[in-house]
Amino acid sequence: MKYWTLTEADIDRIAIGCGILGTGGGGSTYHGLLRAKALLREGKRIRMVRPADMAPDAQILGIGGIGAPTVGIEKIPEGSEGVRLLSALERHMGRKVDALLGDEIGGGNGIAPMLTAAMVDLPVVDADGMGRAFPEVQMTTFFIHGQAVQPAALADADGNVLVVTDATTPKMLEKLLRASTIAMGCTALMTTAPMSGDFVRRFGVPHTTSQAWSLGDAVLSARAAKADPVEAILKQSGGVRLMRGKVTDIGRRVMAGFTRGKLTVAGLDADAGRTLTVEIQNEYLIAREGEKIITMVPDLICIVDSETGRAIGTEELRYGLRIDVLSMPAPVLLRSEIALASVGPRAFGYDFDFVPMGVSADAPAVPQYEEDA
Amino acid sequence: MKYWTLTEADIDRIAIGCGILGTGGGGSTYHGLLRAKALLREGKRIRMVRPADMAPDAQILGIGGIGAPTVGIEKIPEGSEGVRLLSALERHMGRKVDALLGDEIGGGNGIAPMLTAAMVDLPVVDADGMGRAFPEVQMTTFFIHGQAVQPAALADADGNVLVVTDATTPKMLEKLLRASTIAMGCTALMTTAPMSGDFVRRFGVPHTTSQAWSLGDAVLSARAAKADPVEAILKQSGGVRLMRGKVTDIGRRVMAGFTRGKLTVAGLDADAGRTLTVEIQNEYLIAREGEKIITMVPDLICIVDSETGRAIGTEELRYGLRIDVLSMPAPVLLRSEIALASVGPRAFGYDFDFVPMGVSADAPAVPQYEEDA
Repeated sequence: MKYWTLTEADIDRIAIGCGILGTGGGGSTYHGLLRAKALLREGKRIRMVRPADMAPDAQILGIGGIGAPTVGIEKIPEGSEGVRLLSALERHMGRKVDALLGDEIGGGNGIAPMLTAAMVDLPVVDADGMGRAFPEVQMTTFFIHGQAVQPAALADADGNVLVVTDATTPKMLEKLLRASTIAMGCTALMTTAPMSGDFVRRFGVPHTTSQAWSLGDAVLSARAAKADPVEAILKQSGGVRLMRGKVTDIGRRVMAGFTRGKLTVAGLDADAGRTLTVEIQNEYLIAREGEKIITMVPDLICIVDSETGRAIGTEELRYGLRIDVLSMPAPVLLRSEIALASVGPRAFGYDFDFVPMGVSADAPAVPQYEEDA
Repeated sequence: MKYWTLTEADIDRIAIGCGILGTGGGGSTYHGLLRAKALLREGKRIRMVRPADMAPDAQILGIGGIGAPTVGIEKIPEGSEGVRLLSALERHMGRKVDALLGDEIGGGNGIAPMLTAAMVDLPVVDADGMGRAFPEVQMTTFFIHGQAVQPAALADADGNVLVVTDATTPKMLEKLLRASTIAMGCTALMTTAPMSGDFVRRFGVPHTTSQAWSLGDAVLSARAAKADPVEAILKQSGGVRLMRGKVTDIGRRVMAGFTRGKLTVAGLDADAGRTLTVEIQNEYLIAREGEKIITMVPDLICIVDSETGRAIGTEELRYGLRIDVLSMPAPVLLRSEIALASVGPRAFGYDFDFVPMGVSADAPAVPQYEEDA
């Protein structure tokens, strides 16, 4: 098996990249960064493995945080939640797992599986189920393509653990895990049913840890060269800048276990006079200029500090912050019809269909096959 | 082993008695009554066993409904929730249980374990953990005396099942089960950790199914003899009538998974001119006349139809109903200092200590040992 064994310098890059891919959510990367480095210094190892290198019948478990990022930034993990999860689930299944992965590469959840993996010495698969962050459990390419709904498990910092042994739908699983997370104080660590190596290879968003690393490396290289880190992000990601501006208003509240809100950005420099609004449910979902929607979920809306290129999570937004609002195309696995039913605008309660970024709403959203004339 | 094998006539009596002991809650007995009779007609058996006859190391599992009675009266069980619970918990523990019991004799929960027991042919222990009904999971003589917090399990009518494999406290277990129950639509069936025969014999409220039967038999005998069924209840239970009256106001809402509210009763006949109020959290908790508290939790406040002696659940209260408000002393196991911390007025948010019914608030609540003069 070929492994990519992470160094502290890799963790720095991955944390920056996960922040950017977090589209405002997925939890802060800061605690995960410190904890991953501490584990490396204790002599633990974090080994990444490519999805194509996993045995087809390998058992892979997704691990990540669930809750409201605004709470998670203050109520930090105890540290061994993942070990308790793994132990509860392995006991329930009566078998061991072979590798971990993150269901969500965005934010702290891009690092979360590495922490548990280091503690139990399992490899981490370089793939995830979102290619970004989403607020709900069922919004992964895995559930979209038929991942088993059970078993799933939830653990908190105090030692509470529960196993969902049967759930009728992924959405019901989300409801059950969310309700318990709220009872646990709005943050917890969760895991969903193990997946085979073959399944992850077919339905995972591949190499997203590598992608995060590349984004982080671009930012650090630009900083070192006194170049513009935001330009470096755009060049590396194929994204576009929607606006450079200043936060003039942020409404944010924790409700039903989520952070919800709305951000207003006034343009600066070349964008002076323009106003952009961004709607939030844990993540940045919809960017509008006046009535016009510029970018919509599942395409990525990423907000970074204009000076440093560091991602700004929804919980960090405050009046006066100088930011760049960027947009990146969603992975193809998220743009299919079946995926859009779970992660398109309608899945978030909006009354319109997905239109990819850069495409006029009047143009068809997907190629149209027509009768031969 | 000596069994008391229930007949349909026994079920009739037990349902009436459980209703009275339900102190307004524990869920309606109506569905359980019908279902128990249907199971008997299918040839299943319901066998009661005395706690003293259980082997000291027998494994006994408590089963009962959780949720808001106002919801439970409309959203009825699917029927095999208990079988799914038992299966999930036995799988988790890796061993079988020997008998079931109800954590709560009051209301439908006094019948609930019989339904599952009939389906899997296990005996039901003639004891419970409340001697009445209480709104929260941790309010049992079992948890008060150290029942293990895990494992516990929850199942709903749709097929969702979860197992709490670790909980830090009984109160945290209540929070987790309550949150998931709400996610399941406000009603579910639950089970807590298995208890030994010895533990149930020491800390269970003994023979409460028999007590329910006796109350029901007294009511049916009085009806048959054209006598006053309410007087029969008082004679059988050692309780007192607080007031005969008419419902003049009932405020009731479902919040946080509970039914909460306040009832006002205007006196009739000998009680004309008096007004009684009763405060509700799933059960009738506090009865006041003006500022004066007449009966308080854990003593039982039971409301019955003045004509028939049938118990009136909190969900059935409506303007104009002719009722008798009765009061019965709580089992001694509920009146100890350790029990009152869990089921006394302060456990429900009231700012006063328990005073047993019939005792003036100025008198000491418990015998006071004093120095020999």
